[in-house]
Amino acid sequence: MTVRQSHRVVIVGGGFGGLAAARALRHAPVEVTLLDRRNFHVFQPLLYQVATGGLSPAEIATALRWILRRQRNTRVLLAEVTGFDPAKREVLLADGVVPYDTLILAAGTVPSYFGHDEWAEHAPGLKTLEDATEIRRRIYQAFEAAEREPDPARRAAWLTFAVVGAGPTGVELAGAIAEIARRTLRREFRAIDPATARVLLLDAADRVLPAYPPDLSRRCAASLARLGVEVRVAARLEHVDAEAIQVRRGGAEERIPTRTVLWAAGVRANPLGKRLADALGLTTDRMGRIAVAPDLSVPGHPDVCVIGDLALSAGPGGAPLPGVAPVAMQQGRYMGKAIRARLMGRTPRPFRYLNKGELATIGRAAAVANFGRLRFSGYLAWVLWLFVHLMYLVDFENRLLVFVQWAWNYVTWNRGARLIAHGWRDT
Amino acid sequence: MTVRQSHRVVIVGGGFGGLAAARALRHAPVEVTLLDRRNFHVFQPLLYQVATGGLSPAEIATALRWILRRQRNTRVLLAEVTGFDPAKREVLLADGVVPYDTLILAAGTVPSYFGHDEWAEHAPGLKTLEDATEIRRRIYQAFEAAEREPDPARRAAWLTFAVVGAGPTGVELAGAIAEIARRTLRREFRAIDPATARVLLLDAADRVLPAYPPDLSRRCAASLARLGVEVRVAARLEHVDAEAIQVRRGGAEERIPTRTVLWAAGVRANPLGKRLADALGLTTDRMGRIAVAPDLSVPGHPDVCVIGDLALSAGPGGAPLPGVAPVAMQQGRYMGKAIRARLMGRTPRPFRYLNKGELATIGRAAAVANFGRLRFSGYLAWVLWLFVHLMYLVDFENRLLVFVQWAWNYVTWNRGARLIAHGWRDT
Repeated sequence: MTVRQSHRVVIVGGGFGGLAAARALRHAPVEVTLLDRRNFHVFQPLLYQVATGGLSPAEIATALRWILRRQRNTRVLLAEVTGFDPAKREVLLADGVVPYDTLILAAGTVPSYFGHDEWAEHAPGLKTLEDATEIRRRIYQAFEAAEREPDPARRAAWLTFAVVGAGPTGVELAGAIAEIARRTLRREFRAIDPATARVLLLDAADRVLPAYPPDLSRRCAASLARLGVEVRVAARLEHVDAEAIQVRRGGAEERIPTRTVLWAAGVRANPLGKRLADALGLTTDRMGRIAVAPDLSVPGHPDVCVIGDLALSAGPGGAPLPGVAPVAMQQGRYMGKAIRARLMGRTPRPFRYLNKGELATIGRAAAVANFGRLRFSGYLAWVLWLFVHLMYLVDFENRLLVFVQWAWNYVTWNRGARLIAHGWRDT
Repeated sequence: MTVRQSHRVVIVGGGFGGLAAARALRHAPVEVTLLDRRNFHVFQPLLYQVATGGLSPAEIATALRWILRRQRNTRVLLAEVTGFDPAKREVLLADGVVPYDTLILAAGTVPSYFGHDEWAEHAPGLKTLEDATEIRRRIYQAFEAAEREPDPARRAAWLTFAVVGAGPTGVELAGAIAEIARRTLRREFRAIDPATARVLLLDAADRVLPAYPPDLSRRCAASLARLGVEVRVAARLEHVDAEAIQVRRGGAEERIPTRTVLWAAGVRANPLGKRLADALGLTTDRMGRIAVAPDLSVPGHPDVCVIGDLALSAGPGGAPLPGVAPVAMQQGRYMGKAIRARLMGRTPRPFRYLNKGELATIGRAAAVANFGRLRFSGYLAWVLWLFVHLMYLVDFENRLLVFVQWAWNYVTWNRGARLIAHGWRDT
């Protein structure tokens, strides 16, 4: 008996792009292998809610095996990818190899410190669930330390929170920390008043949400001010250490003592992008991304595709598509069609991104919505934000739990998932 | 102006006993300080559900500050207690001291390896949320490793789970792992069949649930057998390492290759008990517990009380009270009355434990209930178990989330909180 070897698609990364690609290949005559270091998919847009104790990690994560359990042509392997051998068509693992006929790299991004990697330990970024629980620990631990600190200056440093980067994640984090200080922790401390905490939001650009239209930036800044967030735009971060940050604005240099600095300023491609580019003899862009053809394959290598934040993919007008979930999901779904077309000997139509608009939330009942000519903010934008995020959660169980938790948080102002765990295995 | 120094009660430990004591002192004319290493209270009876991915850590944990926020005479301090100075009446912290007029030690227990502390790394116990997420990681990681293991013997070792100790926690863990293997993970793997996993439950006693009446032990053993758990009673554990366990039954010695060993065999007092006993010039019992007088104070030291699992407290007939949550909670509540009585110059009536019965669950629709002469098992006992555990959860939010999660798990057989997190900060 001879078994016909079917076409093997190997997907690296179970984020929005990789998972969408795996699902899109459900009925394709291929064998799919999805590789990830973690056994779960994370709904990244709500990571900041885990980082601020509003949601539990498992409420925004779903086991990849559970999602794909009925998809018989697909296997999930928990593995650490270390590199690629395009000549042999193999993905290299820490402990083995996985052969492919088509490779889809969807490994996403990591925080970028613009050449200051030494800042990372003092200013964690927010890309993984582990980052989120670490940030959560730092935020709530700072209030605990302040409660026990007799020295006023040191206490003030514990009660100063600096968020670097005023894109959507930075705005969400700063707004949530302000709400924690003013509302969630009210009444809970005896030696300090958490409401006296300072929350700083810094950006080198001249406005918050620099990628949004200026009128929405203004409305966002006004909402942040109402929450008590001190917005400092056109501010250059010069230095970060365990005790303070150094900021330059115009000609003035300022040192701000703070024990909690959070990084939402920039990302670069997962280092796997560079390894693939090196293996293929290509270069990456400044952010470490790999340029792809209109069908998302790497030029000259039709068996290698890159999707999501790691891909440098030209949008309408030639500008690169932004690193957002909708782009990754649409590219993942496109891969399903493209691979089927190629297997049938057809040339796939080029990928086209359909921009459905963008939403950013600032805090309770405050958000901004940008749908091109239609732009609005406030309560309506916030309700839309809630609705869209609930609908896009992968699993019904997550939707149900997040809905219950949000309703409860809304009524009580509490954030029930605010665990400070020590030691090497957190909760 | 002179401020009258009110009586300072310092409670070490925010578990069932310490928290009940703090709450019972709500209206007492005292200043309460509750010290804990963690910022949350854990509902320990459901830890095994976190360890098996059925519930999220935050669903069974509640911030101590949140519980006590309206209790103005009480402060919570996040601190590591290192010892005691009874002469100065001070609790010693890693970074300071806290003076007391009355000390209540409620620091609970830690796993005991009967002189084999080297087994701890291979066989984690289940006393903290960190333990629970570590056990969860090991259980689910074992299936992932088996999926990638080509060698049949090594694969079988990954698919063998040994639970040591057949008390309620061991029975619950073994039953849950069997359900994970037979139901939760069905369809999710391609190279292995999770249902082939072996789940062993070992105990040196001659029956499971040795503290329960023999007829309930029999019914429990029958339920475990139906779930596919291999029960080995009268089995002595001789050795544990990373690859196998060595078990002696009667004269026969057996080596069982397994990569996942969980410890539910025994506990001893938190080492803080020994430190307090040394400071007071007393001895502890074999388990490290401190003997207390009928009013739960340490004989000869009326300003020092010990409650919960750390106290060696005589029950009716003189036998020591068991280390279970109801004893700790009743002792905590008793402290409220006892301290108030003493402040008014009265001698408190002795503590009396009211045993309301006990429940242990084996798995879906299977539990045993022991109310003295009234004993039953099966579906009714299981529903009662669900109800009692929901009602005793400290916080309404937890009750709501656990209820939703349980309902969902019941319908889908899924365990949504099964995250395998790597690195130093888990989720």
